[in-house]
Amino acid sequence: MSDRISNETELIQTYLAPLAMGAPGAFGLRDDAALIAPEPGTDLVISTDPIIAGVHFIASDRADDIAWKALAVNVSDLVAKGAEPLAYTLALAFPEPPERAWMADFASGLKSAQTAFGCHLIGGDTDHTTGPLSIGVTAIGVLPRGSFVPRTGTRAGDHIFVTGTLGDSALGLALHRNPALYDTVLTEGDKSFLIGRYLRPSPRLAMIAVLRAYATAALDVSDGLGKDLARLAGGNGVSVRVQDLPLSSPARAAMTADASVMDAVVSGGDDYEVLFAVVPERLAAFKKAAAITAVSTTHIGVLSVTPGVSFVDQDGRPIAFKRSGYDHFSLL
Amino acid sequence: MSDRISNETELIQTYLAPLAMGAPGAFGLRDDAALIAPEPGTDLVISTDPIIAGVHFIASDRADDIAWKALAVNVSDLVAKGAEPLAYTLALAFPEPPERAWMADFASGLKSAQTAFGCHLIGGDTDHTTGPLSIGVTAIGVLPRGSFVPRTGTRAGDHIFVTGTLGDSALGLALHRNPALYDTVLTEGDKSFLIGRYLRPSPRLAMIAVLRAYATAALDVSDGLGKDLARLAGGNGVSVRVQDLPLSSPARAAMTADASVMDAVVSGGDDYEVLFAVVPERLAAFKKAAAITAVSTTHIGVLSVTPGVSFVDQDGRPIAFKRSGYDHFSLL
Repeated sequence: MSDRISNETELIQTYLAPLAMGAPGAFGLRDDAALIAPEPGTDLVISTDPIIAGVHFIASDRADDIAWKALAVNVSDLVAKGAEPLAYTLALAFPEPPERAWMADFASGLKSAQTAFGCHLIGGDTDHTTGPLSIGVTAIGVLPRGSFVPRTGTRAGDHIFVTGTLGDSALGLALHRNPALYDTVLTEGDKSFLIGRYLRPSPRLAMIAVLRAYATAALDVSDGLGKDLARLAGGNGVSVRVQDLPLSSPARAAMTADASVMDAVVSGGDDYEVLFAVVPERLAAFKKAAAITAVSTTHIGVLSVTPGVSFVDQDGRPIAFKRSGYDHFSLL
Repeated sequence: MSDRISNETELIQTYLAPLAMGAPGAFGLRDDAALIAPEPGTDLVISTDPIIAGVHFIASDRADDIAWKALAVNVSDLVAKGAEPLAYTLALAFPEPPERAWMADFASGLKSAQTAFGCHLIGGDTDHTTGPLSIGVTAIGVLPRGSFVPRTGTRAGDHIFVTGTLGDSALGLALHRNPALYDTVLTEGDKSFLIGRYLRPSPRLAMIAVLRAYATAALDVSDGLGKDLARLAGGNGVSVRVQDLPLSSPARAAMTADASVMDAVVSGGDDYEVLFAVVPERLAAFKKAAAITAVSTTHIGVLSVTPGVSFVDQDGRPIAFKRSGYDHFSLL
């Protein structure tokens, strides 16, 4: 028997308003707009990245995982800019009123995520749609005035780093769709790790202050390393040795069974690691600061004046990959 | 022959980036997040209200009108809170890549709207969707610290006002669908006016400073007067004489042919007028301030301790209407 939410007031007041507690400018989600009172000497950073069922997530996934990811992908953008998450708005469009149990799980996932990321729901909107479930988060972060880390502005000679490991999420998605994949080389624990990296990406909050202090440019790896490296490089270029790319143990294990796993590493997308540049003069200080965070950072290359991103093997020979990354717009 | 946009970069850089000129924190739409540097002593106000084809607008409408409305409905929320529009983000989800001519018209409508409203595009996202076209605007406004006009906080004795005229947009939608409607009483000019009120709502920017100075509570009439009055009244109530409601000349003309036009006035929604409360002690000063704006304001009632919103005729007899307003969520 279906037990669906009957109206917008129930949806907002029962399931979402508890997520706004602790944010005075949310007015208990009873106003048409939210208020932010910026601290003197701070700037705000705004990121908006909706996720849509069938495009960015699988509609049958657990509601708490979907909710986590909706917030995480936006917080990841704030982190790459050096901003601390402060608040977010939520625009939900449902093809039909959700089941109460589904909505409770969804709210629970948001609660876990906002607690982990240190922000609150402050407003939003709920609608009917004739299309798939759509979750539109706009995240707002805060940083000391003038400390925004831009995406552009790198120069030849800058050192390129990436946090964490790459390709896990793309492998996790493949395993999520086909749990028998790489059965000969992956343990159940390996599979859980990889699927978890797809379902519940962890924005690198511990790196925020280090990025602000040392990164001259940064972005999160959401559309695939190849594509995002090209964005960071701007008019310069970089040649990356694939053996320098940071891989998790499960991803390395999968690669022993299937060399094409490197495609997932280079172009898989959905990694939500931070890709950033450090100028040579600040390299030593950066390394000291990064070493005391809980996040690993890997040096993957140095920018050169030759435009273009290439991947090479240990002998310097170019390696071709199927594609360099996602264009969510043209996946039609 | 179809002439469609081929990728996200073209979409953003050719059509949207020009709308970000003049907003330094937009970084030419080349970053993953936007920057806002708040002026000392100000607060920010955030509103997010997506519009979806088939739900909030007709997919075959002119692209410039759709764009205007997407921004206007959000700016209307800012205005009701006493905030000056500052910036907005735009999350577009397309079922297929748009035609270049359509996108040029859409950008032109946004340009007209942001120029009229005094704000700039600062960021956003474009995606593919398997559903209908969805346009998610998050609007950001600014006001002097502490001057936010809330939705709640009215008391018995407060005077209730509304700007402009009511019901035009609902009539405009009916005429947009059936241009022969009310042919005996409406001129072509009347019809254009009403359809224009539906397609291109005009947030009451001229009232922003007056609302901040005199309104103790306010919201825009987006879901129908009856429903929005109940929200403003909170635990109190109000009895409204329908002949006190402000109607445009075309709406009055339509009413001569069809008395049920009053349904559109009371519950039509999409008016984007401001409904607000003024305490008795400040009534005279408010009227002086309102009189020198270009916007008409009409006194429609006084809050009483008796909860509930009712509409009465000139003899005080209650009038029943089909429904009190829209619930976009439960229109399933």
